[in-house]
Amino acid sequence: MRFATRMQTAQRSFIREILKVTADPQIISLAGGLPSPEHFPCAAFVEATRAELGDAGPACLQYSTTEGHPELRAFIAKRYERWGLNFSPDEILITTGSQQGLDLLAKVFLDPGDAVVVERPGYLGAIQTFSLFGVRFTPVELEDDGVDTAALEQVLRAERPKLYYTVPNFQNPSGVTFSQDKRVAVAEIMYSPSGEDTVLIEDNPYGELRFLGQDLPPIRKFMRKPSALLGSFSKIVAPGLRIGWIAADKEVIEQCVTVKQAADLHTSTFAQRVLARFLRDNDLDAHIEKIRKTYGERRQAMVEAIREHFPSQAKATEPEGGMFLWITLPEGCSSLALFDAAIQEKVAFVPGVPFYTDGSGERTLRLNFSNATPERITEGIKRLGRAIGRMLES
Amino acid sequence: MRFATRMQTAQRSFIREILKVTADPQIISLAGGLPSPEHFPCAAFVEATRAELGDAGPACLQYSTTEGHPELRAFIAKRYERWGLNFSPDEILITTGSQQGLDLLAKVFLDPGDAVVVERPGYLGAIQTFSLFGVRFTPVELEDDGVDTAALEQVLRAERPKLYYTVPNFQNPSGVTFSQDKRVAVAEIMYSPSGEDTVLIEDNPYGELRFLGQDLPPIRKFMRKPSALLGSFSKIVAPGLRIGWIAADKEVIEQCVTVKQAADLHTSTFAQRVLARFLRDNDLDAHIEKIRKTYGERRQAMVEAIREHFPSQAKATEPEGGMFLWITLPEGCSSLALFDAAIQEKVAFVPGVPFYTDGSGERTLRLNFSNATPERITEGIKRLGRAIGRMLES
Repeated sequence: MRFATRMQTAQRSFIREILKVTADPQIISLAGGLPSPEHFPCAAFVEATRAELGDAGPACLQYSTTEGHPELRAFIAKRYERWGLNFSPDEILITTGSQQGLDLLAKVFLDPGDAVVVERPGYLGAIQTFSLFGVRFTPVELEDDGVDTAALEQVLRAERPKLYYTVPNFQNPSGVTFSQDKRVAVAEIMYSPSGEDTVLIEDNPYGELRFLGQDLPPIRKFMRKPSALLGSFSKIVAPGLRIGWIAADKEVIEQCVTVKQAADLHTSTFAQRVLARFLRDNDLDAHIEKIRKTYGERRQAMVEAIREHFPSQAKATEPEGGMFLWITLPEGCSSLALFDAAIQEKVAFVPGVPFYTDGSGERTLRLNFSNATPERITEGIKRLGRAIGRMLES
Repeated sequence: MRFATRMQTAQRSFIREILKVTADPQIISLAGGLPSPEHFPCAAFVEATRAELGDAGPACLQYSTTEGHPELRAFIAKRYERWGLNFSPDEILITTGSQQGLDLLAKVFLDPGDAVVVERPGYLGAIQTFSLFGVRFTPVELEDDGVDTAALEQVLRAERPKLYYTVPNFQNPSGVTFSQDKRVAVAEIMYSPSGEDTVLIEDNPYGELRFLGQDLPPIRKFMRKPSALLGSFSKIVAPGLRIGWIAADKEVIEQCVTVKQAADLHTSTFAQRVLARFLRDNDLDAHIEKIRKTYGERRQAMVEAIREHFPSQAKATEPEGGMFLWITLPEGCSSLALFDAAIQEKVAFVPGVPFYTDGSGERTLRLNFSNATPERITEGIKRLGRAIGRMLES
């Protein structure tokens, strides 16, 4: 069979392949990216299904509009008001997870050979999606307080990329959050002549999972031209629903609706309506507060265990929210080599290389803290510290 | 903003635009393509949700594999055994509606400029999806008993298309079903040197909705090389779930999984598990039998009303299943002009032009019979007959 040219370079998610290795229950996996299932609102979903099917009947199971369930779009638009952002429900498109938002925006904007700015390191799911469109990646360094803005400005000026994709809060994989100053600076660069050919895509799956410090406004707050935001219920309600959204100016939404019609007609009416009913009958903020508390404890356990058990030459981020923490090993180390040693110690993580589009990141790795108890985390870090120590000795 | 080249030719669904015109409740709409909501199993879905969330708990709301819920894949594979087709569950990929199946197969197979065979007329959703990939359509005439096989062989030989997309049972829009002979002939042509560069995609959303005549096996049954089948629960359970599938040889499924990861990670775990539970606890065949009976009565009402109320110069298909019936007006008539006259009579249909990739089909139109009572159908056809009669007079 003759497959399309794009399939020659397409790669399966490295992480999904790793997760197969870690199926052994004796292995403490800090590799995945799963939200903690103990906070999934199972009973409330049974009740929401009963109530919504009772009230709306067959409409819950019928075809519906590509744009999405009106109640859900209104809920999302309203939630942006906390930041003083005025989106009308017409500027919200419900997507089949925010991963689909990436695919739709890629279809709307990207021709083969176009440049796309991603961060070093950057979100793997976005890298995979953009790759299928035959783009050139023009990566920009991620510093402790956000993107290197001088480098960003230079890349925009020199490469005229179509898109700049960023995750400004508790980024996956690094845990890095943009400072307020960097948010303002990015918005100004996008508005400057250097940025005039480039659309900002601001992805925010983890923003509501802050357990330390102050919430910061989206970059959009400072933008003086159109941009697109991606959002998701995966981390604040449940990922198995596959419900996310694009919030953007009407011109962008209209194009996204056209390509979504051809991609899957619309997102599951059933899942959308049950979610909307859950949100109507329950207090989302109180629910998120419980998740924050749990993840905060787990992050604390991981940070403390790293301080205690990792050799001092290994550098770790200490994120104020989200689900991930990022390790940089000393010069000359390889996290791929460490992976094998760690599996022998019965602990797993994700090596950093796949998060780089240029093949670098060899001595980095990602740790997840959302989906293990503090005890398991402490034990896992102890094992990993042992593996790192042995590697440094040899 | 600089949108991608593909957006210059992208079109919104003409049908969705028409449906807005027909929101007026006084208008009898034979335009849509909705399954009848009276047969949606609402109460059974409440129960399936309760049972599945009770038994499987948070797993119903967690991320899951791109390939799909194992129980659902096994159910689908088993159902093909009725035709003596042996698919293993590994050869079934769950998709977010069969519309997504089209998008995934297009990504896997199509480069810009590739030729794709569709039928004249052909399914609009497929035409839209393939269009976004910059293909050349090489349409082949649909006759009363299926595709014109001589023309198909010639097009395959001359154009070396990547794909031949067909809907062999009760096609949307025409209602045409391939005879057994044509099925065998298509399989042989695909296997011949003329077809060796072309993959058959056999889409079957309506196959189970036969109310007259004999069920016929999929073309796959006669195929001597790989092909892909698309299926859907939209017409036999409920479209709002957005659950369909691709059944294909492992090599094709693997490529589809890679692009599905980037498209939406996986189809809603919640919708998949509730559906699987519904299928475990209910008799799908008994459920389909009820739908068949209702649609059969409605089709009969439409066929009889057409015989009584349409001028004899208008030709109508009399399908043995599915949801649609196809009208060809006499030479010189325009179904677009008729549409305006029909709206004045308070009845709506879909003009045929968008189902043709070459701008033809001007005197054709599609009628839907699944989503109106026999009384409304009879009255709608009477009104439409009046509008056609007046058009022929003038």
